[in-house]
Amino acid sequence: MDGYTLRHKEPSKKDFLDTADFDQSEIVDIIKTARTVRSFIKSGGYLNSLYHKNLAMLFEQKSTRTRISFEVAMEQLGGHALNLAPGAIQLGAHETIEDTAKVFGRMCDMVMARVDRHESIEALAKYSGVPTINGMSDRVHPTQGIGDMITIFDNWPKGKRPNDVKVVFVGDATQVCNTICEISTKLGMNFVHYGPKNHKIADEWLEIGRKNGERYGGSAKWSDDPKDLEGADFLYTDVWYGLYDKETPKDVYMKDFYPKYQVNDEMIEATGNENVKFLHCLPANRNEEVTDSVLDGPHSLAFDEAENRLTAQRALVLYFGRVAQMTLDYIKEQQDKK
Amino acid sequence: MDGYTLRHKEPSKKDFLDTADFDQSEIVDIIKTARTVRSFIKSGGYLNSLYHKNLAMLFEQKSTRTRISFEVAMEQLGGHALNLAPGAIQLGAHETIEDTAKVFGRMCDMVMARVDRHESIEALAKYSGVPTINGMSDRVHPTQGIGDMITIFDNWPKGKRPNDVKVVFVGDATQVCNTICEISTKLGMNFVHYGPKNHKIADEWLEIGRKNGERYGGSAKWSDDPKDLEGADFLYTDVWYGLYDKETPKDVYMKDFYPKYQVNDEMIEATGNENVKFLHCLPANRNEEVTDSVLDGPHSLAFDEAENRLTAQRALVLYFGRVAQMTLDYIKEQQDKK
Amino acid sequence: MDGYTLRHKEPSKKDFLDTADFDQSEIVDIIKTARTVRSFIKSGGYLNSLYHKNLAMLFEQKSTRTRISFEVAMEQLGGHALNLAPGAIQLGAHETIEDTAKVFGRMCDMVMARVDRHESIEALAKYSGVPTINGMSDRVHPTQGIGDMITIFDNWPKGKRPNDVKVVFVGDATQVCNTICEISTKLGMNFVHYGPKNHKIADEWLEIGRKNGERYGGSAKWSDDPKDLEGADFLYTDVWYGLYDKETPKDVYMKDFYPKYQVNDEMIEATGNENVKFLHCLPANRNEEVTDSVLDGPHSLAFDEAENRLTAQRALVLYFGRVAQMTLDYIKEQQDKK
Repeated sequence: MDGYTLRHKEPSKKDFLDTADFDQSEIVDIIKTARTVRSFIKSGGYLNSLYHKNLAMLFEQKSTRTRISFEVAMEQLGGHALNLAPGAIQLGAHETIEDTAKVFGRMCDMVMARVDRHESIEALAKYSGVPTINGMSDRVHPTQGIGDMITIFDNWPKGKRPNDVKVVFVGDATQVCNTICEISTKLGMNFVHYGPKNHKIADEWLEIGRKNGERYGGSAKWSDDPKDLEGADFLYTDVWYGLYDKETPKDVYMKDFYPKYQVNDEMIEATGNENVKFLHCLPANRNEEVTDSVLDGPHSLAFDEAENRLTAQRALVLYFGRVAQMTLDYIKEQQDKK
Repeated sequence: MDGYTLRHKEPSKKDFLDTADFDQSEIVDIIKTARTVRSFIKSGGYLNSLYHKNLAMLFEQKSTRTRISFEVAMEQLGGHALNLAPGAIQLGAHETIEDTAKVFGRMCDMVMARVDRHESIEALAKYSGVPTINGMSDRVHPTQGIGDMITIFDNWPKGKRPNDVKVVFVGDATQVCNTICEISTKLGMNFVHYGPKNHKIADEWLEIGRKNGERYGGSAKWSDDPKDLEGADFLYTDVWYGLYDKETPKDVYMKDFYPKYQVNDEMIEATGNENVKFLHCLPANRNEEVTDSVLDGPHSLAFDEAENRLTAQRALVLYFGRVAQMTLDYIKEQQDKK
Repeated sequence: MDGYTLRHKEPSKKDFLDTADFDQSEIVDIIKTARTVRSFIKSGGYLNSLYHKNLAMLFEQKSTRTRISFEVAMEQLGGHALNLAPGAIQLGAHETIEDTAKVFGRMCDMVMARVDRHESIEALAKYSGVPTINGMSDRVHPTQGIGDMITIFDNWPKGKRPNDVKVVFVGDATQVCNTICEISTKLGMNFVHYGPKNHKIADEWLEIGRKNGERYGGSAKWSDDPKDLEGADFLYTDVWYGLYDKETPKDVYMKDFYPKYQVNDEMIEATGNENVKFLHCLPANRNEEVTDSVLDGPHSLAFDEAENRLTAQRALVLYFGRVAQMTLDYIKEQQDKK
């Protein structure tokens, strides 16, 4: 297995709405594409695989990382991303979401959207007719999941097999938690959601994680017992305040999560693993869900993770734009020339 | 006459503010450019006629189709469009519109604007000094008109001469109605505005249409008699609620237009033409001015029409950027090579 | 000395936060780059020195000139600028400015920001790790300063040496006033701030100007005596209402500045120099700080100055992107071919 040959010459589905829609080999293909392209661009290579291709980016909420990473990815691959900021188009207001989707599909080559409701990204995918990527919904955050798995692969615990790796997601069961449960178990790892019972990950996701475990080794469970932190290779957390619907008032979420579920030096210690790595999808509410000492400390991969949003988006637009294998062939050709 | 040779090597006017400023042969040149370029790009060709050229797009109101179509058109032709969204610049607020126009003209190669008042686009054209395109004003919607005529040519009633073709615009006399009256009669067709007397198209436009009729055959009239639907080749409608000034409250416009002026299966039937086509500039208020059954049915061209916004914008930036003939020569050269 | 060879092959500092951070020879290098690149592009040359490079543009306030000039500059040099409009990201709101800066630096090649507080641009520069350009803060407006010096060089008083040239900044001591004091004295000219005592330029800046004078000839002073207008080669003004914090109410600023500090025909006359030139950074409040007769009259360079914002930004992104000398070499090579 090298970094230049994909198992899937074409994506099995037109759209990237949820990592759960793809089997392990296809997720591995995407990650492989991402890492090979990153390495080529970092070494000064130029790509134009998406020359004159246009991606419509639609945001129902503000976004920093998702917006910048997709816009830069398209530019670096010879194409362009159109930024439809919150308020630029109100899905379902002056026009039905189906009609907006059709118009996108008639004018653009691909669609990426961050939506309030998962049903919206499904409708955009169905009616646009062009490859559609979920840039986060209230259900999942699949592009984040790809970037995070790249970061985990880049920092793989020495000598371990996937089935020996433990990923603990701490705190609120956000859509990022759902996606990490799904994708980490699909890649054969052991997943724990460590959080308060009233913010427990939905049984649906634990069930998906368990099924992945049956197929690929690994496991999925929820726990509020600090003992389950032991042996963690990766501690992951996200904000506590709820990005969707009305945001939770600070006193409410602090009561539920603080101090037990704050990732701080004591929690790092509690893993018993001096090489444990810390992940955060950002933005962080510093000194709420994570202390400065952890976020800025030697265990933290949070900013590598942010950079890997870009690493992931490049692969996603190439793969769902159906030019991933062609791009890898071109990279190989260029490298063989040297 | 082929698709590669224009009658007008250069535009007769610097700006595209109103289709009424151009004679038939020049409108035909623009449409010809649009269709040839579309066919070349759809067959996988790449163009860079506007390489490193920048279009300033200024929106005083929100826009989906106009914004996306111009941004994609510039990108597909090797250039770039800057999106100045509503609120980014308030014309005449912190600075006079004349001063803003001069600055645009000093930094950008072309200007496109959607404006509240037609006077604003005239001032932008005058003071920018660079080619300026009207992306809709309270008076006309000329880029829509070009896209619609492309759609009509693509779906020309078999065997008919222009003077036998009938276009009925149903409902409110919006700025789209004005433009369709002007451009359809300029191209020799017969135009009817079918709507309530208190929303009748202005006499000025009927007069323009009649003069076009004298020159090119065809005719223009207003009617509220359903008999005038008979023999229509194209039924066109637009929303009822008024995009400008304060929007009309729903109960007011429903009383004026509903149910008589709704395009529904009965109205399709009333044309007596089983091949009648339906047009809508979108966005649509489904089941107000048009029923789902018509908009999504076999007569509807509404989404082809949306796609032809892009077809039209490419031609407009090429033609007013003074590189249309050069582009057609290049396309011919490429095609002759095969 | 030709236009193709820079004294500084690399910038002495990673960032362009304040003209005061650079000595005369480096400011001259930037201006030289700007003028040579302008001349090459105006004669139809194409450059791609920043091919596939991405500039994050962050605006805490609205901007017309700064935004358009940077976006067009990046596009004309083969790269791309991302527009993060006011409200798209609130520095220090959902995430600390340091964290936002790190993310920019991980995904983009350069950062440009217009900020409320000078501390913010310093933090962005420090934490982004990539070249960062100050697109105006409450302290200085250095990119404006470069553009203005280009305009002054383009319109240099015949036969004069720098130490004989007099620049009078009239009215409010805005951040533009601070920068003009600094950069004009650094280039050896004599600077006067002519304004009311309660809006006098800060002593800190006069001190910087005096030190520049010691080193490069020239001088800096404040005055409210109309006699100091005599012999001015350049009259410069800016709006009176205060762009930062709460804007000053009209009756307050009119009382302080009007009519004494309005640039009008009488003030032009008072310079005793029939070749005096008028500068304004724009936007202008016509017939407040400057009359129509002056802004639109034969002395005015205001719109050349606006165009030179673009001239300046090209040089700044090339120079701080560390490809200025390479670009000048390429231009020379192209011109030698002819």
